[in-house]
Amino acid sequence: MSGSVYGTMFRVSTWGESHGKGVGVVVDGCPAGLPLCEEDIQKYLDRRKPGQSKFATPRKEEDEVEILSGVFEGRTTGTPISMMVYNKSQRSSDYSEIASYYRPGHADYTFDEKYGFRDYRGGGRSSARETIARVAAGAIARKILETLGVDILAYSRKIGGIEIADERFERDEILNNPLCMPDAQAAAQVEALLEEKMREHDSVGGLIECRINGMPAGVGEPVFEKLNANLGKAVMSIGAVKGFEIGDGFAVADTFGSINNDEFYYDEDGNVKKNSNHGGGIYGGISDGSEIIFRAAIKPTPSIAKLQKTINKSGENIEVSIKGRHDPIIVPRAVVVVESMVAIALVDMLFVSMTSRMDDVVRFFKK
Amino acid sequence: MSGSVYGTMFRVSTWGESHGKGVGVVVDGCPAGLPLCEEDIQKYLDRRKPGQSKFATPRKEEDEVEILSGVFEGRTTGTPISMMVYNKSQRSSDYSEIASYYRPGHADYTFDEKYGFRDYRGGGRSSARETIARVAAGAIARKILETLGVDILAYSRKIGGIEIADERFERDEILNNPLCMPDAQAAAQVEALLEEKMREHDSVGGLIECRINGMPAGVGEPVFEKLNANLGKAVMSIGAVKGFEIGDGFAVADTFGSINNDEFYYDEDGNVKKNSNHGGGIYGGISDGSEIIFRAAIKPTPSIAKLQKTINKSGENIEVSIKGRHDPIIVPRAVVVVESMVAIALVDMLFVSMTSRMDDVVRFFKK
Amino acid sequence: MSGSVYGTMFRVSTWGESHGKGVGVVVDGCPAGLPLCEEDIQKYLDRRKPGQSKFATPRKEEDEVEILSGVFEGRTTGTPISMMVYNKSQRSSDYSEIASYYRPGHADYTFDEKYGFRDYRGGGRSSARETIARVAAGAIARKILETLGVDILAYSRKIGGIEIADERFERDEILNNPLCMPDAQAAAQVEALLEEKMREHDSVGGLIECRINGMPAGVGEPVFEKLNANLGKAVMSIGAVKGFEIGDGFAVADTFGSINNDEFYYDEDGNVKKNSNHGGGIYGGISDGSEIIFRAAIKPTPSIAKLQKTINKSGENIEVSIKGRHDPIIVPRAVVVVESMVAIALVDMLFVSMTSRMDDVVRFFKK
Amino acid sequence: MSGSVYGTMFRVSTWGESHGKGVGVVVDGCPAGLPLCEEDIQKYLDRRKPGQSKFATPRKEEDEVEILSGVFEGRTTGTPISMMVYNKSQRSSDYSEIASYYRPGHADYTFDEKYGFRDYRGGGRSSARETIARVAAGAIARKILETLGVDILAYSRKIGGIEIADERFERDEILNNPLCMPDAQAAAQVEALLEEKMREHDSVGGLIECRINGMPAGVGEPVFEKLNANLGKAVMSIGAVKGFEIGDGFAVADTFGSINNDEFYYDEDGNVKKNSNHGGGIYGGISDGSEIIFRAAIKPTPSIAKLQKTINKSGENIEVSIKGRHDPIIVPRAVVVVESMVAIALVDMLFVSMTSRMDDVVRFFKK
Repeated sequence: MSGSVYGTMFRVSTWGESHGKGVGVVVDGCPAGLPLCEEDIQKYLDRRKPGQSKFATPRKEEDEVEILSGVFEGRTTGTPISMMVYNKSQRSSDYSEIASYYRPGHADYTFDEKYGFRDYRGGGRSSARETIARVAAGAIARKILETLGVDILAYSRKIGGIEIADERFERDEILNNPLCMPDAQAAAQVEALLEEKMREHDSVGGLIECRINGMPAGVGEPVFEKLNANLGKAVMSIGAVKGFEIGDGFAVADTFGSINNDEFYYDEDGNVKKNSNHGGGIYGGISDGSEIIFRAAIKPTPSIAKLQKTINKSGENIEVSIKGRHDPIIVPRAVVVVESMVAIALVDMLFVSMTSRMDDVVRFFKK
Repeated sequence: MSGSVYGTMFRVSTWGESHGKGVGVVVDGCPAGLPLCEEDIQKYLDRRKPGQSKFATPRKEEDEVEILSGVFEGRTTGTPISMMVYNKSQRSSDYSEIASYYRPGHADYTFDEKYGFRDYRGGGRSSARETIARVAAGAIARKILETLGVDILAYSRKIGGIEIADERFERDEILNNPLCMPDAQAAAQVEALLEEKMREHDSVGGLIECRINGMPAGVGEPVFEKLNANLGKAVMSIGAVKGFEIGDGFAVADTFGSINNDEFYYDEDGNVKKNSNHGGGIYGGISDGSEIIFRAAIKPTPSIAKLQKTINKSGENIEVSIKGRHDPIIVPRAVVVVESMVAIALVDMLFVSMTSRMDDVVRFFKK
Repeated sequence: MSGSVYGTMFRVSTWGESHGKGVGVVVDGCPAGLPLCEEDIQKYLDRRKPGQSKFATPRKEEDEVEILSGVFEGRTTGTPISMMVYNKSQRSSDYSEIASYYRPGHADYTFDEKYGFRDYRGGGRSSARETIARVAAGAIARKILETLGVDILAYSRKIGGIEIADERFERDEILNNPLCMPDAQAAAQVEALLEEKMREHDSVGGLIECRINGMPAGVGEPVFEKLNANLGKAVMSIGAVKGFEIGDGFAVADTFGSINNDEFYYDEDGNVKKNSNHGGGIYGGISDGSEIIFRAAIKPTPSIAKLQKTINKSGENIEVSIKGRHDPIIVPRAVVVVESMVAIALVDMLFVSMTSRMDDVVRFFKK
Repeated sequence: MSGSVYGTMFRVSTWGESHGKGVGVVVDGCPAGLPLCEEDIQKYLDRRKPGQSKFATPRKEEDEVEILSGVFEGRTTGTPISMMVYNKSQRSSDYSEIASYYRPGHADYTFDEKYGFRDYRGGGRSSARETIARVAAGAIARKILETLGVDILAYSRKIGGIEIADERFERDEILNNPLCMPDAQAAAQVEALLEEKMREHDSVGGLIECRINGMPAGVGEPVFEKLNANLGKAVMSIGAVKGFEIGDGFAVADTFGSINNDEFYYDEDGNVKKNSNHGGGIYGGISDGSEIIFRAAIKPTPSIAKLQKTINKSGENIEVSIKGRHDPIIVPRAVVVVESMVAIALVDMLFVSMTSRMDDVVRFFKK
């Protein structure tokens, strides 16, 4: 099936290659009446756009989105919203060489094994340019979530081993430094590290953390469609993600029930609260109404200029140095992609949860 | 929708509560002609059965599976296979008390928020007895995988902070100790720790590791249906899993591209090999034919006899001690559940991958 | 995949063969809080039960349904509802002979071609006993629809060429005669015809008509998921259905736009009305709030005692007379099956339509 | 969800409005390695293009398709194929008036009821221009089917009550007259009728018949995913279709089992044959390898210049004469749309059927 369609009620269908005519997405299932214009999409695309800092590929792409359908007189009509970004800065000649060999850490080999051949220009469909479509669809999902009072905030928690300090956390700082770190001091340290690694023709990995606030309790379906399982799939479907953890995540392996359980209490106003949030806001796969928090591990950019061993299609062991325009770090540009996938997954789960209770269904139709 | 259906081509639909009449599953999409009998299912159910060691709930359940449809004269017919296990050892009185309050670390509160009320007996649908259905379906998936030469091996990698040593790894040891650890020495240490924690009325968490061998290259779909994303969702849909990582997982956050990239080479026979497997056998969401390796973090059993704070439904802050029959550790019994979900996810992805290439499709129909 | 799962939000997964242990269904996606007991299901099963008239197979089956999960203290819990009916009156010896040849008009040959072999006892999975699962799931769907004020009424419109007269239509008569005809006079004529055809060892076909009232306007999704397309698929998935038409149906082929268009007008109270209902209550795949009306053509029972030519598996042309217990007419017992499939399809479409408008979604979550 | 996505393994996602920027489609799940270029698509689009005869709207649209992704060096890559046709001849002023009222026989009223408002220009999403996307996706499906030896042939069987004579059937005649009738004599009669109806500002309905040859036996899934049920849904999802029948269809209501059953026999070469094809090539929802034949009833064009009664949005009963460029008959241009939907449905069902037998699956992976 190829796997480029996501969602049950909020369906996202993406397409496009790095060096084809463009990349795009069709969003089917956006409710009618949502105010929407290109600027609502563009502001998120601008955050993942290349060429914005010395740590991002100097490939110049305006990545200007065009809405082709589904919006009339400034509002969504309830029918599919098609969006497209033309590729403008393709320099295919940069990639002509890689047609003949398999880049380490890339999907070149597996695409050839799966499909028999591949569009090798810039990685073709496996290029990070594919995430433009996720961000465009995510922008619509976020607009829905904003209307419902749900807030998503992701940022770089750790890059190349340097982690933010929670006591220095400043939300406004995230979009203020090229690393999307909410801690200016950590960001400065990372900048120094990255400059060193760029000189060494190397790249670094990192950790993205994401916090979701304002989610109603009761969202997520038991058993296979747990909210955490869907968030995990959505985030792990992003190219370089190698791990996902929710709440205390992997730390639970070393702890005890008496510590890990979150205790409930009623506050003075009779609201349900918890003394801790080790669970990350989800129990039994269902949101409890508190903050949802998770982390994703992002691998270092596989494209490095440093000399590496690999094989070519002629049966030879060779050494290569990957040329072209590549980021020394994926993490900062992936932050908005993580937020976008979260938004898409949340809207889908919210919509799916609307039939949980018979009395809600009756009230809906007896409106 | 409630979320108890999994899969696109190999569809699994589970049902049942801890203290209802039983638990069961319908598997739709098993090819015709697979030899299948109850014993093929029972051997896996026996591995998750309670009452087998001092670390597992003494609740006595035979958990005997019955195949109700889809098998004729010893072979699958291609039509839905319905399987059922009756609940026999329900002691609902144990649970009558918990109807009135929300157990910390459980889904009691979120089920009430979602559905308005809940079957509180033994956790109802959120009970770990639900995993019987996963194991039964997984047993069929594994039989398919065995026929195709795919091997799945999971085991406890770490419990309560005590980790296996890779140099002491012995596959046979896994089913030899009650902790499913492939390292007898680590298992002995864990036994001592668990006895201590049981005396303290506490519980511990741990880590399950899983290795998949024999997977053909080319399985997994790009973008949203990556093999790792689907494995992640399948595994994170299991109740107590709080994290999932593939290959080097979270360690990639602290490493560099020059180290993390797996280098290809041709061996003496011209076979494609890699110098390392940091990626865990999957690139761009597609299997490369080598070993797939991942880990899942499992939280400590939330049901503990130790006194905990919580709330009741009458608006009071209370203290509770969870009675009933509970395991002090979830990890060992979850090992076969992880294997089962992996098997289900792999069969589904294998089937879905059959249309990747036009020449394969043509050969299939021109047989 | 085998195709025994139906629905997006209201998911029905059926299983079972004519002469296996039983037939059953899992309903996933029923909202929590719906009062439900076995009697709610049984009353519909009793309408399709064999042995109730001289025109129905004398096979005696009590077809007593058991609810195995998803209901607690008399109400649905929102989790999967598993239901089962045991097969009690299997006389497999009746069918031992048909293992060797292909019955004309049956699925024996196509099952063998598809799966390589088949459970030949009573038709196995292709038996009409499979519809028990549809009726059981449909009973739940109907209870939901009743709560929402939606009424479904099907009946035999024509049998063996004898059609009801609209001016003699009496709703109460439908369950009063063994033919489910709302016209006692036509029913009497049909009875005489059937007695004749039974003497000739033959069978007859007919037409079922169905009227849906109380559907809200706005249900059905444009393009591929039109309400009429989904009703059509649901009804045509029933074994013997060879045609489906909505509103004026096939008569539109011979008419003109000026006649076929339904003209709107405001009545004295300002309500939107139509001068006619040629369209059958659906425009552009979306309900308009008026009566939905469709018809389905049902073929004659293929199992007849009359001598027929066919082939056996040994490569011979043979002649056969189908023994066993068979209805001379499928139509009357199919009426409740049609109603059931309609109910399932309508609930699914109603649920799916809940996200059509942003203001409704906002109101839902800001409740 | 909005319903613009079709298919399980061969997924088609369409978008676009009559007077928006264009219409398009994303095809996800086309196997890699299929030779494909714009001309393969264009030849089918040209068959549905307006302005080709006096019986088709004079709106001049080139309807030139552009492939935006998924094809590299002349072959499909296995990744999503995005195709688009720009709208060029929008004359929105023609439609400004219809914003205020509901056209009889159209989806104006139901769209407003569902979504709260609508893109009224040319019918917006409910316009027949939406079928461009179906034809483009269908062209890819047909290329796959051709490779597999499956042939689809649709034509106008009846228009305005004038039916073709089977003895005058000539395949080449179908594309030779503007009515897509395989009988030149009937076509001439219809031309005369249409000229008369155009003078009367009226429109006529008709019947499309479709024959599928070369289908392997064993395609189609039992119970809900029967081949006929999926063909029915695919065809009834086309705008003006009011009925669908397979094989003898509605005629079975008036016949007897002894006539309706198709008898099998072995021919001289030992091949399985049937004495008749009342069933239309499908038994139990599964293809038997013989010709599949069905018919669809198409209503008269609802847009007519003749004066009609209707309502406006200001609460008034009014009379209208629909202006603009409209076909007096939908049937001929719908022929290629029917073929396209059939192609899409068949490819999806063929792909889904590949896991019917375990031995086929084993042979596939042990290639």
